[in-house]
Amino acid sequence: MSARGLFISFEGIDGSGKSTQARLLAEGLRAEGREVVLTREPGGSPGAEEIRKLVLTGAVDRWSPETEVLLFTAARRDHLERVIAPALARGAVVICDRFADSTRVYQGMGRADLRPLVDALHRLVIGKEPDLTLVIDIAPEAGLARANARGAAEARFESFGLGLQERLRAGFLALAQEAPGRVVVIDGAGSAQAVAAEVARVVAARLA
Amino acid sequence: MSARGLFISFEGIDGSGKSTQARLLAEGLRAEGREVVLTREPGGSPGAEEIRKLVLTGAVDRWSPETEVLLFTAARRDHLERVIAPALARGAVVICDRFADSTRVYQGMGRADLRPLVDALHRLVIGKEPDLTLVIDIAPEAGLARANARGAAEARFESFGLGLQERLRAGFLALAQEAPGRVVVIDGAGSAQAVAAEVARVVAARLA
Repeated sequence: MSARGLFISFEGIDGSGKSTQARLLAEGLRAEGREVVLTREPGGSPGAEEIRKLVLTGAVDRWSPETEVLLFTAARRDHLERVIAPALARGAVVICDRFADSTRVYQGMGRADLRPLVDALHRLVIGKEPDLTLVIDIAPEAGLARANARGAAEARFESFGLGLQERLRAGFLALAQEAPGRVVVIDGAGSAQAVAAEVARVVAARLA
Repeated sequence: MSARGLFISFEGIDGSGKSTQARLLAEGLRAEGREVVLTREPGGSPGAEEIRKLVLTGAVDRWSPETEVLLFTAARRDHLERVIAPALARGAVVICDRFADSTRVYQGMGRADLRPLVDALHRLVIGKEPDLTLVIDIAPEAGLARANARGAAEARFESFGLGLQERLRAGFLALAQEAPGRVVVIDGAGSAQAVAAEVARVVAARLA
């Protein structure tokens, strides 16, 4: 492994199993003796978690979409500075459950015209992309059933129904086409163990 | 008065008397029967006040300068959408104690290289400038004495001493040279009543 770490993000619709897969990958790499920092967005650093609370609580119309993008970007900048960049600098593998692709896909759902703002803010203050992004792909019906079974607390993002989940899935698949060198789509329909094996195979190839 | 309102901001170093002047101007215009919305930054709307709390409390290094600019910009966007723009649309005079010029001057003090970021964010998500900005200009020694006498609570911004106040003053005067049509410098050395009379004269000319 090089002295510089590897930055891996997991993306996918609600109920895709991405959080489970992020955890299983972290466990597998740690078992190999690697330093792994498992983190998530929105949040991931003390400051970013405070901003997350501001964004995810309160009335649905508490913030306009533009203000929400600014707050997510502020949280991401803090997370990047305080957690991700230092870990990569010391050679760790950083595994992040959601990163900038989630902002691109989720914010673009209600307001397609927001994508240029999302991209401009990313260029201005984030810049960084993961070395590898794994989209855990699942049929929306299956994802929604899993998310509902879990009783997901963050209703703002997870209870918009099947139509939205279909559009989100299409959004993630479109990103994979935009950035084929970075984004790999993993079939999430199998058992957690089967999916984890495929994830481990793709990651091993990048670490080799 | 036209159907569209007038947007006036007050700027100046700590202890310049700008908050007093903003209040006196609001009282004077209300006495003339005008609708006046007196507000302030950072803050000014419920959401922006929450962001203000995040930025102004905690350790000095709680946020990086970049994250701080993002948070101030998110607060300003909320304030503009929820308070300033609706008031102007119904024809009110909006008087704001600090606006974007404070971000330009204060954020640029520690890190001159931040000004392009501040300007780029402003163009992206704020766009709006006041119709008239009044810089209440005072010698730093006098401003600092006033601020200290007041026992100002926000120590992060107000206790950096005379050298910083001198640089902030120079920053506000430089903005007045950048935007001479919008920014008017008012001598703040006299009594509150004398300064208020000069402020009222300048504003009356704009409202005529």
